[in-house]
Amino acid sequence: MEFLAAEEIGKKIKEISVAEFFEKNRHLLGYENPTRSLLTVVKESVDNSLDACIEARILPTIKVLVKPVGSNRFRVRVEDNGPGLPPKKIPIAFGKFLVGSKFHKLKQSVGTLGVGVKGAILYAQLTTGKPAKIQTYYKGEKHYFELFIDVLKNTPKIVSHKVEKVSKNLHGLSIELIVEGRYVKGQQSIPTYLKYISIANPYVEIIFDSPDGRITFKRVTKELPPPPKEIKPHPYGVELGKFKRMLRLTRQKTIAAFLKNEFCRISMEKAIKICKLARLKPTRSPRKLGEDEIEKLYRATQMVKLRGPPTKCLSPLNEKMLIEALKREFPGEFFAAVVRKPSVYRGFPFQVQAALAYGENLNLNGCLLIRLANHTPLLYNAGECAITKAAQQINWRNYGLSQSEGCLPNAPLVLLVDFISVWIPYTSEGKQAIAQYPEIMKEIKLALQEIGRKLSVYLSRKRKIIRLKTKRNIFESYAKVFSEFLSTLTGKKEDYIRKKIDELIKKGVEVEKIEKKLKEKTEIIEL
Amino acid sequence: MEFLAAEEIGKKIKEISVAEFFEKNRHLLGYENPTRSLLTVVKESVDNSLDACIEARILPTIKVLVKPVGSNRFRVRVEDNGPGLPPKKIPIAFGKFLVGSKFHKLKQSVGTLGVGVKGAILYAQLTTGKPAKIQTYYKGEKHYFELFIDVLKNTPKIVSHKVEKVSKNLHGLSIELIVEGRYVKGQQSIPTYLKYISIANPYVEIIFDSPDGRITFKRVTKELPPPPKEIKPHPYGVELGKFKRMLRLTRQKTIAAFLKNEFCRISMEKAIKICKLARLKPTRSPRKLGEDEIEKLYRATQMVKLRGPPTKCLSPLNEKMLIEALKREFPGEFFAAVVRKPSVYRGFPFQVQAALAYGENLNLNGCLLIRLANHTPLLYNAGECAITKAAQQINWRNYGLSQSEGCLPNAPLVLLVDFISVWIPYTSEGKQAIAQYPEIMKEIKLALQEIGRKLSVYLSRKRKIIRLKTKRNIFESYAKVFSEFLSTLTGKKEDYIRKKIDELIKKGVEVEKIEKKLKEKTEIIEL
Repeated sequence: MEFLAAEEIGKKIKEISVAEFFEKNRHLLGYENPTRSLLTVVKESVDNSLDACIEARILPTIKVLVKPVGSNRFRVRVEDNGPGLPPKKIPIAFGKFLVGSKFHKLKQSVGTLGVGVKGAILYAQLTTGKPAKIQTYYKGEKHYFELFIDVLKNTPKIVSHKVEKVSKNLHGLSIELIVEGRYVKGQQSIPTYLKYISIANPYVEIIFDSPDGRITFKRVTKELPPPPKEIKPHPYGVELGKFKRMLRLTRQKTIAAFLKNEFCRISMEKAIKICKLARLKPTRSPRKLGEDEIEKLYRATQMVKLRGPPTKCLSPLNEKMLIEALKREFPGEFFAAVVRKPSVYRGFPFQVQAALAYGENLNLNGCLLIRLANHTPLLYNAGECAITKAAQQINWRNYGLSQSEGCLPNAPLVLLVDFISVWIPYTSEGKQAIAQYPEIMKEIKLALQEIGRKLSVYLSRKRKIIRLKTKRNIFESYAKVFSEFLSTLTGKKEDYIRKKIDELIKKGVEVEKIEKKLKEKTEIIEL
Repeated sequence: MEFLAAEEIGKKIKEISVAEFFEKNRHLLGYENPTRSLLTVVKESVDNSLDACIEARILPTIKVLVKPVGSNRFRVRVEDNGPGLPPKKIPIAFGKFLVGSKFHKLKQSVGTLGVGVKGAILYAQLTTGKPAKIQTYYKGEKHYFELFIDVLKNTPKIVSHKVEKVSKNLHGLSIELIVEGRYVKGQQSIPTYLKYISIANPYVEIIFDSPDGRITFKRVTKELPPPPKEIKPHPYGVELGKFKRMLRLTRQKTIAAFLKNEFCRISMEKAIKICKLARLKPTRSPRKLGEDEIEKLYRATQMVKLRGPPTKCLSPLNEKMLIEALKREFPGEFFAAVVRKPSVYRGFPFQVQAALAYGENLNLNGCLLIRLANHTPLLYNAGECAITKAAQQINWRNYGLSQSEGCLPNAPLVLLVDFISVWIPYTSEGKQAIAQYPEIMKEIKLALQEIGRKLSVYLSRKRKIIRLKTKRNIFESYAKVFSEFLSTLTGKKEDYIRKKIDELIKKGVEVEKIEKKLKEKTEIIEL
């Protein structure tokens, strides 16, 4: 009886194609409702465009089109001026899940998983049955593909491929999809996503043809951030299983050379020290170690003291750029920004940058928190995100703001936090929230506290002015009666006395001077 | 220049094995810190055991062992009395991601993704480098495997396979892993997880050899719930892309037969009606339809009125079982339970059951919310879960409980919500939270409101007793003085008068009667 059941279960054991897996679990990729799905389609394509342009050191100009075609259906087209792709790579890069150029690199980029844009193509064919249209310029040719993903096989299925001669100077890639969706405005929308992109990537120009007309986000600077470099893994971030695999696959002839060349921060001296600790000859072949020897060697690499990983792999904005961009979209009264020093989690270098805009004039309904990961906006799953949690755990009352316990401050404030790393620990493939590693939480809090303190100084000056103004108003309102009285008393002319009194008030209550100082402070941000 | 970059990017485009993907993104599977990781290892194995036993209609007895072996390392062993697996299927079922028996079925089960236990094996080899040890009884033989997952290829790597003759009556499967972890008690712990399993699956017996000694969770009933049946997809839940694929792969000769036989709730009559709506001959071959014709046919299936999917695929507990199990772990003063009628989201049938235990004696620090999906506890990511959100959005003040805005009620209360479905929309592969589909939220709220109302009746009775008791206490404390006074006044004996007064109080303030009624009410739960 039981073995019949075992047999039955055994028969049902089947392989699942990864495309099929994501088709059935499309909410994992961010396709759980029509509103979010439309945003995800745009996001995945724009992310790819940004990565390609930055990789090729091209100032990105990205054209986004979202046009309704029938009820609940949209044509989405994203076109960039990036390097494009060799045509022979198009089918696999767009038609097969878990294929990508960035997964194995330790280098800051937006995409990494080899999943993103395939999810958009899958979603399009699932909801409207229409193929993806991809076009790339390449060495004086324009290549145009129409393709599906064969879901059961996880392979590209090319419907058509056309080639045309064009000018040698043309470059770039575009993707067009027909998808089911719902177009909205507001906080979790495509316009907001693009606006935040342009704030966090001030060198990008975005031309958005929305269902309501064209919106242009101009670039604020022509300066690309320094190119992020690829780094080797740091020993502290490599788990035993991975270490074993590296030993098996290495081309290095000795353990010492393996340690020195396959990791960062291990000099030959350190490598020999590690071997000594593990009681292994540094000249032994790395591929011939036994299980126990591997474990000893691993433990030794974890015990020896090493510098943190290099941070040239990260590419933060500078504070000025950040404030310029924020100012344009949120013209408040006070701004501050900070770029923290790099830090490390699970061996991965990361860095936090934060900025704020404050203004009674900003017409905000409370505090607006802009979350970013490698300069890309995160619009969903705020509740699970390290950035939200960190911001809520700060005591903003210390900085002169009102706040309910465990909430964001209650003030006309925009907070922007950008988490940059060679590996972003997203809480799901939908890439909308950052996992709450303790090291990450700590750095975000420190960044927010730093700009919080700056705001606090501004706010206390501002409160002082209000107090002084009230005081002066009181004096002024009594000045006339007082002048009359003194004139009668002294026999001097009322006008003369009034003038003297006004001078006294002005000197005694120096509102203008402080106001000027305050204004200066908002321009010169101390960093 | 650009094309050099394109060439460069093109060269880097590589396939990523799904095992490698999950290795690098292990937080997606629930391996983000040592505490949660240890729990996940246990959970994935126990989930599989439960599914196998229920599939084979065996009363599950599951032995769980968690023993420390060195610092931060644990031996985890899970053994069941289920049907086991045919030995030839072991390598692929445990050594390859995206292989499973449940992914393609529309039937209630705990596992579905073909990911779970492979994640545990991957985590073991990554953190301790040790292979998984799997043992199955099969037709009078004991098969013992030691295996790894070859991460770069996503294939099993068998280290050893031993066979031994044993009694024909032995059945069951066990898995043993050595993993890095941290063992804790409290809300998000292995003991809590197993306790909740035993509450929601009262027919399961669990013997847990914890680091602190043995804990046994006895079965409360020997009655297995009715076996869930597999159903065909409901037309309203099938997207266009899937519909196209079904048409292409079907063995049916006519469109009408295709519609009738590959979906539930389409009779031949309905099938012909659909064809008519789509202006297609019912006798045409389903594999020879053009793009436009397919879309027309699809639209017609969505337009025609069909009954909801059958619900024999779901297997809820009954209310009594639920209360029995809850009582054992939370011996409070009042209990209530409800099993809602099945409902549908994205074409998938689902059902919500909820129960509560209330008691000042329960020593609870506020409300405890137990979340379950297909009778399996969800211990993490509460903030993102449909169950938490629904419970927080209910106005519990309506039911006589105190509550801060947007929070769980502030009362000594255990709330249990079990979401059962043929397809659970988890928010990540870690399977710890349910996506907030509107239909799901609505049903959870209705279930909670129903048991909330029952609690409300109990609480108002209880408050009445307290009022009456206070009243009686006041009467009683004045009875002596009053008797003396009346005795002097009337000349009758003080004892006689006192007796009469006591009788009057007792009659006038009928606490006992109401208390008795209240007690009865807690036993007979109206459903």
